[in-house]
Amino acid sequence: MAPFFRTNVAALDPYVPGEQLRGSGVLKLNANENPYPPSPKVLRAIRAAADDSLRLYPEPASDSLRAVAARVYGVAEDQIIAGNGSDELLTIVMRCFVGPRDRVAYAMPTYSLYDTLVDIQGGLRAPVPYPADFSIPSALAEQRAAVTFLCNPNAPSGTLVRPAAVARLARAVRGILVVDEAYIDFAGPENVSAIPLIRRLPNLIVLRTFSKSFSLAGLRIGLAFAPAALIAGMMKVKDSYNLNRVSAAAATAALQDLPWMQRNVRRIQRERASLAQALEAMGFDVYDSETNFILTRRAGTDVRAIQQALKRQKILIRYFGVAGLEDCLRISIGTRADMKTLIAALRRAVTHADRERAC
Amino acid sequence: MAPFFRTNVAALDPYVPGEQLRGSGVLKLNANENPYPPSPKVLRAIRAAADDSLRLYPEPASDSLRAVAARVYGVAEDQIIAGNGSDELLTIVMRCFVGPRDRVAYAMPTYSLYDTLVDIQGGLRAPVPYPADFSIPSALAEQRAAVTFLCNPNAPSGTLVRPAAVARLARAVRGILVVDEAYIDFAGPENVSAIPLIRRLPNLIVLRTFSKSFSLAGLRIGLAFAPAALIAGMMKVKDSYNLNRVSAAAATAALQDLPWMQRNVRRIQRERASLAQALEAMGFDVYDSETNFILTRRAGTDVRAIQQALKRQKILIRYFGVAGLEDCLRISIGTRADMKTLIAALRRAVTHADRERAC
Repeated sequence: MAPFFRTNVAALDPYVPGEQLRGSGVLKLNANENPYPPSPKVLRAIRAAADDSLRLYPEPASDSLRAVAARVYGVAEDQIIAGNGSDELLTIVMRCFVGPRDRVAYAMPTYSLYDTLVDIQGGLRAPVPYPADFSIPSALAEQRAAVTFLCNPNAPSGTLVRPAAVARLARAVRGILVVDEAYIDFAGPENVSAIPLIRRLPNLIVLRTFSKSFSLAGLRIGLAFAPAALIAGMMKVKDSYNLNRVSAAAATAALQDLPWMQRNVRRIQRERASLAQALEAMGFDVYDSETNFILTRRAGTDVRAIQQALKRQKILIRYFGVAGLEDCLRISIGTRADMKTLIAALRRAVTHADRERAC
Repeated sequence: MAPFFRTNVAALDPYVPGEQLRGSGVLKLNANENPYPPSPKVLRAIRAAADDSLRLYPEPASDSLRAVAARVYGVAEDQIIAGNGSDELLTIVMRCFVGPRDRVAYAMPTYSLYDTLVDIQGGLRAPVPYPADFSIPSALAEQRAAVTFLCNPNAPSGTLVRPAAVARLARAVRGILVVDEAYIDFAGPENVSAIPLIRRLPNLIVLRTFSKSFSLAGLRIGLAFAPAALIAGMMKVKDSYNLNRVSAAAATAALQDLPWMQRNVRRIQRERASLAQALEAMGFDVYDSETNFILTRRAGTDVRAIQQALKRQKILIRYFGVAGLEDCLRISIGTRADMKTLIAALRRAVTHADRERAC
């Protein structure tokens, strides 16, 4: 590393996104992408946005998108900020609320990007272990943290905590509570979002992404919902024109075609249930998933060897190899055909692993 | 402002982008947007990118775009990082190199976003006045700054310093030198970019944007060029997937159609010369511009009243009203027709202002 860098940045262990294999014929079940395409109305909106107006800056605060989102989510426009993916909104949160050596708390294991963001900002990580059932650990509220993150449903466990528990946590923490609802459209069917809670909790920020349920990971669109006073401050910190014209048009069109997204969610929920059954039949323990992926454990098995065997067949799934997840794999839910391919390959790999172990 | 915010953010005076008037018939000469549309090849690339692959994340480091940019700019791929506009790259620079109370230096007046970025990061502003000819002030290198910004050509003056002076400054400063070349395609005709200097200056970062010369302000695309060791650290700090698929495809297509951009640059250079003449005929002093805008001064005239008079006619130009620029206006270069409309309106407003002053 060159000199000049801040010491925390020089020492930084960067976040590693899910591997991308080049070439065709790869079954990508490692980054929780949606196997179904975005709505045709979204694709039409993008093509319509490809005109001479691209020479002009976008709306600084994405007002047109916010107006539609306010109606869809039942909040006021000044309770919404749009971002270049929810990743950018997480970065804005850090820059707004976390000073040098301020504590940032989250229950582990969770989205490992939180670690990286704390390190970049020069804050202090305050991780707390999740209990076996992935309910909110009581120690989480006791960290005196400037910011507490709750990924809900959680990645990589796929588990959900209910709005009442979220509200209790928001009241108990000292600083800001960020609820990262990247996967919440896959939960339910009843509404389990914390968005309605922003009306009465002054320290609550709820994040959403268009990358998962709306099949738009390629366009980088996120929304944050929070009391207007928090949004106003976050607006000051974001880049002047953070969401481009095409992504803003696509997000607006996506919100105007909810049935498309909801149909894909139902398909994914069905495949998720089938995969869970198949995994259990192969001797895996399966965490209850409210997301578009499944975390699964096979105690005493070299699951990394299984992941590598699948990779040789161009099937990517995720192995973390971090404390508490050594014998776990995370598998994104694909189409029925994807799952058939996966399950067949997994069966062969498991049989092989069991034979190796028996030797 | 709500509690919870860091004190520097709570106290922040946000950057105010160029005003946007809604409705049609507005002549927008206040944000240095390009009056000509992007290349038809760029629009085709965007439409082609509007397909099912948008469900997938983009390339984390925009490798395809970097490969093309490396050929166009004559550097190695690992000397390039792509960003969501050069705004994001400026933010990444701050997060990489500026710790609490580290000094950040720049000559004033310049792009006022630098002030905002320093305040957000909790650094210390170290501004140095430009001399009347807008050459690099010798005091700039003496600020012991973690980062020194040089906007070149400078906004809002439009003036240029030569590569040899940039190299001297890079050698003289203590920390990083960022040369923001947002407008450099409008300079020349000979190559005056600092990009070739990154081969021998370990502390030099050169920023480019697609918002100005490539007519793509709406898509938010920037590139930074620097020694590989600096790029590697900046990569760790950027968001995982910071450039979306559509913008990356558009930027790649734009670099593959340089003649389109260069033709528009030549037209703007011609209109710039005509506008300078017209302004001088009206009694304005005109700074030599190497950009797509002109800064012009009319001593003793209430130029704010002129800007307001034009706004009532739906012609937006920029008045700053900051120290040293009280009697200055900044006018973006438009098409020939735009300039005809502007000059006629300006003539009427100046005549009126002179009459008022005579009373």
